[in-house]
Amino acid sequence: MSWLTATYLVDSEPDRIEARAAAIASEQSVECPLEAIGDARIIEDIVARVGAIEPAGPGRYRVDVRIATQTIGTNPAQFINMVFGNASLWDNVQLADLALPSSVLDIFTGPRHGIAGIRALLDAPQRALTNAAMKPQGMHVPELAALCRTFALAGVDIIKDDHGIDDQWYSPFAERVHACQHAIADAVRATGKPAFYAPNLIGTPRTLRERARIARDEGVRVVLIAPMLVGLPAFLDLVDEFPGFVYLAHPSHAGARRIAAPLLFGRLTRLFGADAAIFVNYGGRFGYPQSDCGDIADAARAPWAHIRPTLPVPAGGMLLDRIEELLTFYGPDTMLLIGGNLLIERDAIRERTQAFVERVAAFRFPAQLSGSTA
Amino acid sequence: MSWLTATYLVDSEPDRIEARAAAIASEQSVECPLEAIGDARIIEDIVARVGAIEPAGPGRYRVDVRIATQTIGTNPAQFINMVFGNASLWDNVQLADLALPSSVLDIFTGPRHGIAGIRALLDAPQRALTNAAMKPQGMHVPELAALCRTFALAGVDIIKDDHGIDDQWYSPFAERVHACQHAIADAVRATGKPAFYAPNLIGTPRTLRERARIARDEGVRVVLIAPMLVGLPAFLDLVDEFPGFVYLAHPSHAGARRIAAPLLFGRLTRLFGADAAIFVNYGGRFGYPQSDCGDIADAARAPWAHIRPTLPVPAGGMLLDRIEELLTFYGPDTMLLIGGNLLIERDAIRERTQAFVERVAAFRFPAQLSGSTA
Repeated sequence: MSWLTATYLVDSEPDRIEARAAAIASEQSVECPLEAIGDARIIEDIVARVGAIEPAGPGRYRVDVRIATQTIGTNPAQFINMVFGNASLWDNVQLADLALPSSVLDIFTGPRHGIAGIRALLDAPQRALTNAAMKPQGMHVPELAALCRTFALAGVDIIKDDHGIDDQWYSPFAERVHACQHAIADAVRATGKPAFYAPNLIGTPRTLRERARIARDEGVRVVLIAPMLVGLPAFLDLVDEFPGFVYLAHPSHAGARRIAAPLLFGRLTRLFGADAAIFVNYGGRFGYPQSDCGDIADAARAPWAHIRPTLPVPAGGMLLDRIEELLTFYGPDTMLLIGGNLLIERDAIRERTQAFVERVAAFRFPAQLSGSTA
Repeated sequence: MSWLTATYLVDSEPDRIEARAAAIASEQSVECPLEAIGDARIIEDIVARVGAIEPAGPGRYRVDVRIATQTIGTNPAQFINMVFGNASLWDNVQLADLALPSSVLDIFTGPRHGIAGIRALLDAPQRALTNAAMKPQGMHVPELAALCRTFALAGVDIIKDDHGIDDQWYSPFAERVHACQHAIADAVRATGKPAFYAPNLIGTPRTLRERARIARDEGVRVVLIAPMLVGLPAFLDLVDEFPGFVYLAHPSHAGARRIAAPLLFGRLTRLFGADAAIFVNYGGRFGYPQSDCGDIADAARAPWAHIRPTLPVPAGGMLLDRIEELLTFYGPDTMLLIGGNLLIERDAIRERTQAFVERVAAFRFPAQLSGSTA
């Protein structure tokens, strides 16, 4: 028998934690009282088992639960169901970590490009990378295309739609992608430096597929998508059907309280195929702890069987004057995403963006951080 | 201009709540500093606006935010993005309610059958309905089919797969659906009473579609699906492509997001097409407050433009001896789902199930609750 280990953080009274752990094990496997099970094979091979229970702060425990991998088979959606299905309905249970044997990892291809693929695309083998966002939504296509050109002329590597930009009347998808691809091609001819426009894919699976085809036909190589919004299973299908794209995962709707941020942004999106993962940076608008952000980046880049590393992309209230601090913290296998802070001086967008690009390029990493993990 | 109102519950110091509210409005629309916006039209027509801010308990506020519906257009995934995208990343913000104008409601067809359609299918115009679950997973197909037959002979209306039953080697989907459809047809011939088997659909969109085709070809009329697990957008596509099915929505993985239970289970799944919505009952294994459960049922059944009512299905640790209490509380437009409690005496499953069915059928609702809202 093969088992995976799911680790949950559970708030509980000390005298109830064993029962809580047993309840999670039941809920994440057979979901019925043991006395309702007549078959010894099911008790032995299917019912999840409580492993270690360790204190994790006042009134809180880390609970390991071993889940039979045969309950997952080869279905990626069922994998989510079995590690955090009904247990997600308790508001004092968080999915904290997963240890996955090869029988589960083999379900997944992971990123098709990952850090090494992104570096190859950008012809940037070593340095940290740069990402800018076209915003606000509401701008018309010529304005967006002009902003895209400005960012590319300033030397930004990847220029993405703001994640609120969809197919609204003021910037229809097909027209926008066409215009932005042309704008970026112009800029690349002028600078001689690779740069890529990443349109936002959002919709039901049918819409995602239609727009992916439009983007592919326009020569798009990088796309933005919010996996927790479209659903991890739909994201996986898209990656599988359009493996040529570099997928930049956006955290919209991810509301990560019940799944630990390093697990969700660093490993689950990676497993499902994200080449780069945007997450909200410490000290920005969202107040994630610095340690979580370090853990997200570590999880995204750590060796993990055949699963390629994912590029960490801190974002969310990033400021130009924090570039050196953030590069020191995250190291070179990182793409910094600066959004609104490039735009706050409307007449100096290109200058601010050039400063961003130049400071990232000029930064010398401490020796212990240099070199790519890709 | 048309606006929807999203209401958030926000934990905040009193002197910071106005800034928090403004930050949510920014995050859920333009997602950049106002000074970065050069166009008066965008400030006027696109930037979300803070409405009422009301105290909602110690350190907690109800914040209304008016969001421009043109930011959504006609894209159901973008609807989720605009009402709870980045704001979901703050762990002290919960999406509590939505007031949607017709321009948004018109994106959605809602349930294709709803309460009236389910009652017609079951030839049960007035009484409360019954639902049983085949569990535990791990049982082989002949055992599952036998259990399905037993439940149907005992008179249960809808007999569903446990939500952990997928396509595992021990009960492959196609073989299981074929066998359970035959088992239920046998029972229906014997009893003369309609009964339906609801197989569980789980997987990426491609897998969902493949299995839906298999189920449809086998004559299946009711299916189980977890919308928050497969993703609401993928669920919507499936409902649209297979409108003949009655969709019974399962709450698995739903707790991973921070959306008020009445809104999520009562209204969002309804909007996206659930004909019946399973939710965890008060006093059961999950400890939802009774008031929330009442609010879920009310939200599922309340008149709502052209959107048909959804059948509320309380579940999760339901006990035979609570039937009368629960019917009194929920009223007749309800389907009670009893799972493990029917199975705890392995030799008396049929008897316990018959008792369930008979007590539901025999119950006389207080006058003020009688009559269907469908």
